[in-house]
Amino acid sequence: MKWIRYSVDGDGDACYGILEDDRIVPVRGDPFGGYERTAQRLALADVRIEIPVIPPTFYCVGLNYVKHIATEGLKIPDKPDVGYRANNALLAHGRDVIMPADATRVHYEGELVVVIGRQARNIREEDAAQCILGYTIGNDVSERNWQASDRTFWRAKNADTFKPMGPWIETEADISSMETIVRLNGEITTQFATHDMLFGVARFISTMSRYLTLYPGDVLWMGTDGHSPDLRDGDLVEISLTGLGTLSNRFVRAR
Amino acid sequence: MKWIRYSVDGDGDACYGILEDDRIVPVRGDPFGGYERTAQRLALADVRIEIPVIPPTFYCVGLNYVKHIATEGLKIPDKPDVGYRANNALLAHGRDVIMPADATRVHYEGELVVVIGRQARNIREEDAAQCILGYTIGNDVSERNWQASDRTFWRAKNADTFKPMGPWIETEADISSMETIVRLNGEITTQFATHDMLFGVARFISTMSRYLTLYPGDVLWMGTDGHSPDLRDGDLVEISLTGLGTLSNRFVRAR
Repeated sequence: MKWIRYSVDGDGDACYGILEDDRIVPVRGDPFGGYERTAQRLALADVRIEIPVIPPTFYCVGLNYVKHIATEGLKIPDKPDVGYRANNALLAHGRDVIMPADATRVHYEGELVVVIGRQARNIREEDAAQCILGYTIGNDVSERNWQASDRTFWRAKNADTFKPMGPWIETEADISSMETIVRLNGEITTQFATHDMLFGVARFISTMSRYLTLYPGDVLWMGTDGHSPDLRDGDLVEISLTGLGTLSNRFVRAR
Repeated sequence: MKWIRYSVDGDGDACYGILEDDRIVPVRGDPFGGYERTAQRLALADVRIEIPVIPPTFYCVGLNYVKHIATEGLKIPDKPDVGYRANNALLAHGRDVIMPADATRVHYEGELVVVIGRQARNIREEDAAQCILGYTIGNDVSERNWQASDRTFWRAKNADTFKPMGPWIETEADISSMETIVRLNGEITTQFATHDMLFGVARFISTMSRYLTLYPGDVLWMGTDGHSPDLRDGDLVEISLTGLGTLSNRFVRAR
């Protein structure tokens, strides 16, 4: 099942619906607190796709694929220490990533995103799936010079528009056979087995939940593999994960 | 004016009101989107004080007072790079901080909290005050061994209950003459001039807003000075900032 968050006519109010082929079934309620299908139908082409969820807490795994860690010249972590990103930076599918005038080395990072469906604390690895609503796609856009020069990731990874997420939440994906493919202007530039993580989803959820409560709508971005070229004004980045669709965003220089 | 967020009879629904002496004037609406006073009155003693705001993004300055930086053996930052904390860890005034069984060196950090009142981007330092709703108090509880051993602050600073904030938001505070006083079981253990920061509130807001949009309800914790002793089961920590009241929380060992 595909949960889509959308708005109509730019009236600003985002609603949840269920995406069936290219039709949306609007619902009363939401995927977290319960819902009812309505009799209405909308064409996907007639709505604006919105960020699929505004997370109470925005978790993001920094280093979770061996090749990426090596390329960035970093040490392989010995345990799953999760990090954070910021809601101001979230951007919906189809909208432009704005590269600030002084951003000189902007990269994409294609990531699997786990969406938490229910409140959870002290979860065993074998039970982790029970607190997951579904999966979507994230682009952990990064400015590498700021990442090196600043003490935190505040602008390197959290400048406005630096966190595209979407297009929707798929509740029935199979991570074990998933592939991540990133296309730059139509050409494949990065490709990796999504599940080839240093620490998997269940391990992260179990470890985190020993110390913290996961809440409905929290998101956990799972890290990336490979390496991005430096992005230029007008570049189109499309990230496809098997079964989850494609997250597309154009990168535009701020004027 | 004092904005208080409260609930009655533990029914779970938190509301905003205006605190006048020891009486609450409930409002329709909230301090961010507009409000109307009601004719009702409640006694402060009859309500549960809730977290004064659930921030869309939870900003926190890591190192902003020279003595604290020296005590922790860290380098003085040369620019205002803001960090983040996580909403799962927020705790209201009067509730217990739960120290996990394996937490061995838990410290308090008394901090001024800035509450953003309106959406803001590209703010000059001289205009920063216009986007501030008011101020409250934060305790940036930290487990120092995890802070040293983990790659991120996920459990060192963001374990459940590690971010007490409150008791309410004061809209008319004067930072320039403010003092931060921390009492441990009634004795003063830390005391410093709140404004004695490396980078002030206006500097942070101006710098941050060059790259990101601040939203109503965002909070910015301004860092701490001094040094906390290791806290023990049953310790009461009271943080008072001139004009803002006192944030009190007992520290209890998880059983």
